[in-house]
This record gives sequence, C-alpha cells and structure tokens, in this order.
Amino acid sequence: MKGGMQRWSLTLPRLADHAAAWHGEEQIVTRNDDGSITRTNWAAVRDRAQRLAAALTDLGVGRGDRVATLAWNGARHLEAWFAITGAGAITHTINPRLYLKDIAYICDHAGSRILFIDPQFVPLVEEIAADLPQIEHIVILGPRSSIPEGRSDLLSHDELVDGYDPIGWAEIDEEDGAALCYTSGTTGRPKGVLYSHRSNFLHAYAAASPDGFDISSRTTILPIVPMYHANAWGLPYVAAAVGAKLVFNGASFDPAVLLDLIRSEEVILAGAVPTLWRTMLDIAERDGKGFGKLEEALCGGAAAPSALIEAYERDHAIRFTHAWGMTELSPIGTVGRPTAAVLRLPAEEQQRIKRKQGRPLAGIELKLRDGQGAEVPHDGESPGNLLVRGVWVVKRYFGADQDATDSEGWFDTGDIATLDRHGYMQIVDRAKDVIKSGGEWISSVALEDAALRLNGIADAAAIGVPHPRWDERPMLIVVLRQGVRLSATEITAHLSGHMAKWWLPDEIRYVDSIPRTATGKIDKIALRRAFAGLEPAA
Amino acid sequence: MKGGMQRWSLTLPRLADHAAAWHGEEQIVTRNDDGSITRTNWAAVRDRAQRLAAALTDLGVGRGDRVATLAWNGARHLEAWFAITGAGAITHTINPRLYLKDIAYICDHAGSRILFIDPQFVPLVEEIAADLPQIEHIVILGPRSSIPEGRSDLLSHDELVDGYDPIGWAEIDEEDGAALCYTSGTTGRPKGVLYSHRSNFLHAYAAASPDGFDISSRTTILPIVPMYHANAWGLPYVAAAVGAKLVFNGASFDPAVLLDLIRSEEVILAGAVPTLWRTMLDIAERDGKGFGKLEEALCGGAAAPSALIEAYERDHAIRFTHAWGMTELSPIGTVGRPTAAVLRLPAEEQQRIKRKQGRPLAGIELKLRDGQGAEVPHDGESPGNLLVRGVWVVKRYFGADQDATDSEGWFDTGDIATLDRHGYMQIVDRAKDVIKSGGEWISSVALEDAALRLNGIADAAAIGVPHPRWDERPMLIVVLRQGVRLSATEITAHLSGHMAKWWLPDEIRYVDSIPRTATGKIDKIALRRAFAGLEPAA
Repeated sequence: MKGGMQRWSLTLPRLADHAAAWHGEEQIVTRNDDGSITRTNWAAVRDRAQRLAAALTDLGVGRGDRVATLAWNGARHLEAWFAITGAGAITHTINPRLYLKDIAYICDHAGSRILFIDPQFVPLVEEIAADLPQIEHIVILGPRSSIPEGRSDLLSHDELVDGYDPIGWAEIDEEDGAALCYTSGTTGRPKGVLYSHRSNFLHAYAAASPDGFDISSRTTILPIVPMYHANAWGLPYVAAAVGAKLVFNGASFDPAVLLDLIRSEEVILAGAVPTLWRTMLDIAERDGKGFGKLEEALCGGAAAPSALIEAYERDHAIRFTHAWGMTELSPIGTVGRPTAAVLRLPAEEQQRIKRKQGRPLAGIELKLRDGQGAEVPHDGESPGNLLVRGVWVVKRYFGADQDATDSEGWFDTGDIATLDRHGYMQIVDRAKDVIKSGGEWISSVALEDAALRLNGIADAAAIGVPHPRWDERPMLIVVLRQGVRLSATEITAHLSGHMAKWWLPDEIRYVDSIPRTATGKIDKIALRRAFAGLEPAA
Repeated sequence: MKGGMQRWSLTLPRLADHAAAWHGEEQIVTRNDDGSITRTNWAAVRDRAQRLAAALTDLGVGRGDRVATLAWNGARHLEAWFAITGAGAITHTINPRLYLKDIAYICDHAGSRILFIDPQFVPLVEEIAADLPQIEHIVILGPRSSIPEGRSDLLSHDELVDGYDPIGWAEIDEEDGAALCYTSGTTGRPKGVLYSHRSNFLHAYAAASPDGFDISSRTTILPIVPMYHANAWGLPYVAAAVGAKLVFNGASFDPAVLLDLIRSEEVILAGAVPTLWRTMLDIAERDGKGFGKLEEALCGGAAAPSALIEAYERDHAIRFTHAWGMTELSPIGTVGRPTAAVLRLPAEEQQRIKRKQGRPLAGIELKLRDGQGAEVPHDGESPGNLLVRGVWVVKRYFGADQDATDSEGWFDTGDIATLDRHGYMQIVDRAKDVIKSGGEWISSVALEDAALRLNGIADAAAIGVPHPRWDERPMLIVVLRQGVRLSATEITAHLSGHMAKWWLPDEIRYVDSIPRTATGKIDKIALRRAFAGLEPAA
C-alpha cells in the first residue's frame, strides 16, 4: 500500500527557487582575475539562470543533453549550472588542469553539445578544437567584450541571459541525470559519474546537517574546492538549499588571496586541502590578523597532521573537521564530527579519533571486506577493503555496460581502511598502493608520513617491489631538502621509531622530485615503472 | 536520461540500522508510571524490533497491513514502531484522549488488525471491544505479568520479542505507507494521513537540519509531545537518523516530573506547548535549579508570548524556537530560526519576527491565496489562505476517493496567515474561526490574546455572530478569575488599547468555563451553537 503523501520531485532548480523566494538578497560574491569583486544575489542568479535556460532551450538543448563547463568558481558558472539543469539537461563539469588529451576525451565521451568556458580558456579550447567534434556552441562566461577579436563564432553568456525572458524550468524528474563528473583515475581512462537530481538534492540535505558540514542560512560559504571537483563538494547546492551567502575565489588559489576573502567577506565555513590550511595558518600567524569570522575549516583530500588541527582549534577557536569522499560518492562519505559516545572518551582518545576521516551519516552504509570476501570487524584496528552503499553512491559509470557495484549493491572504493564501533573510518592506503608483504599489509601512506617527519626530507613516496619470498617488499623514494645529507641508515633509524621492524623499507632511493598526477597525487604508476620493473596497464 | 546513482530506498528501518550500527550504546530512557526509570539503547531496540517483526510476520501481518498503537511515549512503543514498519506494515498511532467512539471509529476505518496498548488501557479497550471487529490480537506493551488476570487472550510484547530470532526486515519500498495518523478534526470525522517511508525519512533529515530543529548525535531529546501526535513531531525518527539519546516521559505530563527528567537525563532539546513551557519556567524560577543542560525549547501548538520567549533566552540562555505544523505536514511546516538577513535587522524587529511561527525549509513551498483565488503578496501584512506543497505534505487522505490538494498540488491548511519576504509565516486565525466583518477579517486569536492580557480574565474565546449589515460581528466570551468583577465597559476599554475600534466585540458574555476539544483546542462549534444560533455540520 503506497503512502498518501505528495511526490514532490527532489530537483535542483527547486533549490534555486527556494533561495530566490526567501533569501533573495543573500549575496553571491565572485573575485575576478584582476582582484576586483562582483556581487550578485540569489534572486538575480535564479532570474538569470531562468533566462539562460530559455536561451539553451532555443539552442536546441533538451532533456538529458550534456552541456559542459570548463571554468573556475564564479557566479556565472553557478548560473550556468542552474540554467543547464533547469532546461532538463546535464551539467558536465571538466577539470581544466587535466592533460589536454583527457579534456578532449572526457568532452567527447560525455557527448556534450555545448561548452561553457571562462575567457582565459579560449586558447586551451583552440588547441583541442579538432578533438571536440560534438561541440556545437562555445559560450564564454562573460559579456560580449570578453570574447577575443576574430572569434565572433563564440557566444556570450551575458548576451544569452539578456536576450531571453525567464520562462520557468523544464519538466524534470528527480531520477533524471543532473550533473556529470569524471574521476581523475590514476589508472585507465577517466570514468563519468552521473549524479541524479535526487542524489544531489539529498546529498545537499545530508551535507547541511549538524553531523555533516553543519550549514544554515547564516553560514557564509567559501568552497575553495573547485566546482569541477564533485560539484565543489556539493557546497553550491547546500548554499541554495539553506539560502546562504556564497563566496567564489575565481581562478586564484593564492593562500593570501583566500585568507583575504575569508576576512573581508566574513566567511564562516571554507573547504580546502591540508597544505592550503597550513599556508593560510602561516600567513595568519605572521600578520596576526586571524581568520575573521571563520568558524569551520573543512579539510579534505588528505589527512591533516595533529599539530595543524590543534593550531586551528586551540589557537583560533576554529573547528577543524576532516571529511572524506570521492567523486563516486557525490562526494561525502564521512565527516569527522564527534558523537556523544566519543565526547565521553578521554581527551587524547578524542584527538586520535579527530585525526581519522570521520563517520557516515544516515543514507550511507560502510563496511570492510578482506581479500577472501569475508567481513572485517569494526574494531578500529583491522584493515579491509572499504565498501560503500547509499543514496548518493554511484551504481553504474556513464556509458558503462555493467554496474560498478557488486550483486548486493556495494561499491568498492579501492581504499584500504579501518572502521571503529562509532563508525570512524581511517584510510590505510589505496588498495593498489598498499604493500603486500608475507600475507600482511604495509601502508605506503604510513611509511611516507613517517619519512616526512624527518626534517631533512622534503618529499617521500613508498612503493612495493616484487620479492621472491614475501611477494612484495617496501621501497622508499625520497627528496632531500637542499643542502641536507641523510644516509639510508640514518633514515631507517628514524623510521624504526615509528613502525614495526618488518615495515622498514628494504631499499631507499634518492630523487630530485617525485612525479605527481594532474590532481596532485603521487604518480605511483610512474614510480613503479621507474623503480620496480613493473608495467601496470595504463 | 536517468542518473547513474543507486536507488537506495529511504525506509525507516534503515534509520534504526544506522543508529544500532554506530550509536548502539546511546540510551533510550523511559520513565515508568511508578517513577522508576528503565534504560535500553539503540542496539537493543533494533534487535528487539527485529524479533518483534518476526513475531508479527508469524501472526500474519504483511505488507501494507495496519497495526495500531494506543500508548504513551516509551521504549516498547518505539520498538513496536520499528517492528511494524520493518515487517512491511503500517504503524497506526491512536490518541487515547479522544472520545471512545472516535477511537473505535479510527481503529475500524484504518482496518487495523493488531492493537498494541499500554497496560493501563485494558479497561478502555474492553469498553469499546464490540466496536473493534477487525482487531485480531491485542498486544500489551509489557511483560506477561502486566496482563490482568483472566485476560490470557492478550499477548505480551516482551514474550513476543523473546520468542523469536531477529530475521532482518521485510522487503520495503520508500513509497510504501509507513505510519498512519488521524487528524483530530474539530469538524467532521477524523481523517487519516498515511505517511510514506520516504516522507518520514526526508522529514527526519529536514527536522535535523540547522535551520530545522538543529539535532545532532549529541542532542539528547525529550519529545514530550506524544508519539500519536504526528509521530511526536517526527523526533524519534530524527533521533534514529543521528543516533541521539532519547528520553520518554511515559504517561506523566506533570511539569515537575518533566523538568526533573530534563535535569537528571541532561536533556538538550525538548518540545512542548506554551503552557507547559510556562509552568516549567515557574518551577525552575521558584526552586532556582535551572534547566540542566537544556539548550533548545521547541514550542508548538500555539504562539508563546514575548515575555515567555525572553525569559528562556535572556535569563536561562536557552533558545526558544517556535515551530508550526499539522498532521498533514508530518508535521513540520515552519521553524523560527533567524536567517542571515533577519540578523541584520534591528533587535526589536528581530523580536517581532521571533514571535511568528517560523519559515519553511527547502522541500516545503508556502503561498497565500485570497478568497477569489488570487495570490496575496508576501509583505508580512496581507492575510490570506495558507497553502502548502512539498515532500512531506499530504496528497490524499487514507481511504478518500479524491485528492486533498488542488490541481496544482497545493494543500489548503485551513489557516489564515501572513508571509513576509524572508518566509516568516504568522497565523492570523483558523479560516473557519476568523470573523468576517464588512469584507474584512478580524482575528479571533488576536481578540482572545488581547483579552487574556487583562489580569482578571482567566480564559477567553471570540466567535463571529451573524449580523445583518456586516455579515458577522465579534462576540467575546470570558471566564473571570475567582473573586474578580469586570464590566463589559472595563473589558472593552482594555481591548481598545490593543486593536482597531471596529475589531472591538459588540457583545461580551460571561461563562464558568470554555468548552475544549479532546486535543485542548477551544470548541468553537459548541460556542457558536450556544451563543450564535449556528449549527455547523458535526
């Protein structure tokens, strides 16, 4: 027997409607490349998005079509998001830092018909123009004057907006695709995750919740994390859902610029990776001017060291909260808020839990499985393959011919992790990077962390090298600070203070720099190719 | 094109699973009739609910069947909720304070096959036994020893739990009916609202949000509001969704007992009507012992006076928050959290807004319509019929043959209200109680409030009386405090300081008491029958 309630479809344009109706004056602030600030608000963004939706419809964009964006965070990009989804189409965000051939591949694989770009990406797009056969129109996110001479074939975002009346949104169902985001994938081709209106809407509700990012209408948000990166952690949708002020940093990721925005725009919550939080802290401590009204430092991408967490929490009374996620999870998997049970633990135990990646909200299920498919206990010690299932978790990659989940619906994250009884998850390693020695696992991440605690080491990477008896044994690859000399014996002596003896690397290699992928991760494929004689599938 | 995400069904037993998995030790506390306290926790509640679900299945309860409960708030009642919905059936909560004939009518109309009752309701059920032909089994929420002598036909909740192994939940879809609640309806027969798993799950997410009730895993909750009253405002589901401690007051609504529970169980959030908040405040101020860890006083059912709000906020640093809702809205329509824009207003303006009923969350749409069907502006001044549409709003009453909404999906709340540009809604009156004088509306609620500000008046009611020229004119009916004498002239002189001259009552009547319905509302039908010569349909 069905319930007797309304089937009010959970669609993203309705979030913009909500923000425009009751929070219309709340600002959307964009920092431009020249350092100037442009201000608009939710009422104007919704109005302009509806005009742009009419323009897109007129350009032939219909339900289910893909429309790509290659752009930094900004109000026009936000207008394009709501216009595209409001026209019934799918917003396909592309990371402009990818290799050009990957950008072309992604654009073509998605079958995007229109491409919105920031003015600065005109040269980039010109370079790959031949590889974008499906693109019918390119729209510059700016006025006509932002279009380069001789490119009158390009359309202007502002002209499209001004040329149409708002005609409301297309008919959309919550199960329809809304946003398409490709994983950066260190192995194989990038894979597309097609979020539905429903999954992004519910993700926004979860992200707003007090055990999530804890966001209300009073929370001025600076996402920092780019809109092409799992929808900027979904923060623009959360902002619309609660009617909060949004601040966009445009193309600048200069820590001084970001800190200045935090202060001048009275930002309450920002999201960034540990290194950015580290450099902003350095600046704030140097100039002694603090963080303005900042209350919450969300940290993703990697685990922050305890000293960094404590500096924010103790010295600046700013909550420093780990979150973990991935494109396939929209992206939130876990958030590091304390439970009531955790608050009853001794302080040092709470600190230990604070360094973990956080715990799941209702709507996300987590579990661990060992190599034989058996369940691993939630004891905070035993590592296992981390599996996820839930409302905003991928089922099938875009264009794939089979599900990304097992027969029970579990998605394998590719991470090795532990889970404790309160749900706190700690990443041990990527499954493909963990070093399998004598049937046991050695965390390459833990090895690297221990090496980096030695002052003379500037960068470090650990990989597994084939071994006839143990299957694999660890090799440590290090970059020394300028002028520093450290022997393998000295490094090993340091490491032995931080781990079991059988974890110690069999060999240490010295290099000038460690190769990294377009998204800043250590390129272990390249390292294995160079040092371990392995040639994994590219 | 459909999205590529999982269709993870939003079902209520999954909330219990979440709480049991990661918040298993968090307590569910019940105050028994003898004043003793019984403690269990989420792990045990989920385990027992799964055993009870197996028992219900064995008793023939299947998908879509209705199982009724006639019980106060308590852990066993909560176990029954999850067991019933987990067996795929529908929890039908019944208000034991209703007239006996209404209880029998509701039970029969719902077609409930099994009835869970507190031991104290055995005599009540015996009285209406002949009118419950569809009830196959009665289960006493207690051990075998709680069943009266000679009633071995009754089943024991604990015996059923102990007699079965947990076998997991039935296959359920989120659109399935989950909970059935009848409106108290001052006119006509009670009407059933059949919540779906989806609507209750999403309502829980909304209720937990920072602009809703702001509930995290750390928020110890004392609902006070009964579980038969729109699922205790959905608070038990919110508690499961976040894994919070729950405190139940059982059959006692004695303010001293409630305040004692707030203090001893370290309650963070409680929900009650203004009179209860008033009496608890009186006790706390008399004994000087405060409210323990209470942070949030949720107030529903009626508008609280400014003095009461200020006493909590200023003297006790407890947020006092109005919420408005109705059974048809699961129940949350609006919650009185400030927006960023409101916080920029002068203090007195903020106080004025604080007295309103609050504003809608994303997922709920509100609008006003006048008698001719035209939209009424959101200016905070113009009254109109309040219409609602959204995720957790009724579409069709249980067993009805037509929708309760108009062709665009709007549900008419039956209230006259104003809306301001920030979404703050203020109830002016019930549409059927507003006094229509010369084409304008006089609020019977405002007249009553003004009368009650006169110290000698203990109770007051205002009704419209037919008038040949003005259609209706107001009559005020008052109860004077013992020993007080107040002439109509004196009362009118007082009222004229609070309202326009044409709002003043044409006539004032004195009575010993004002009739009230089973849910405590003024029985205006009885008053109109007695004083206005009207006989509306019963």
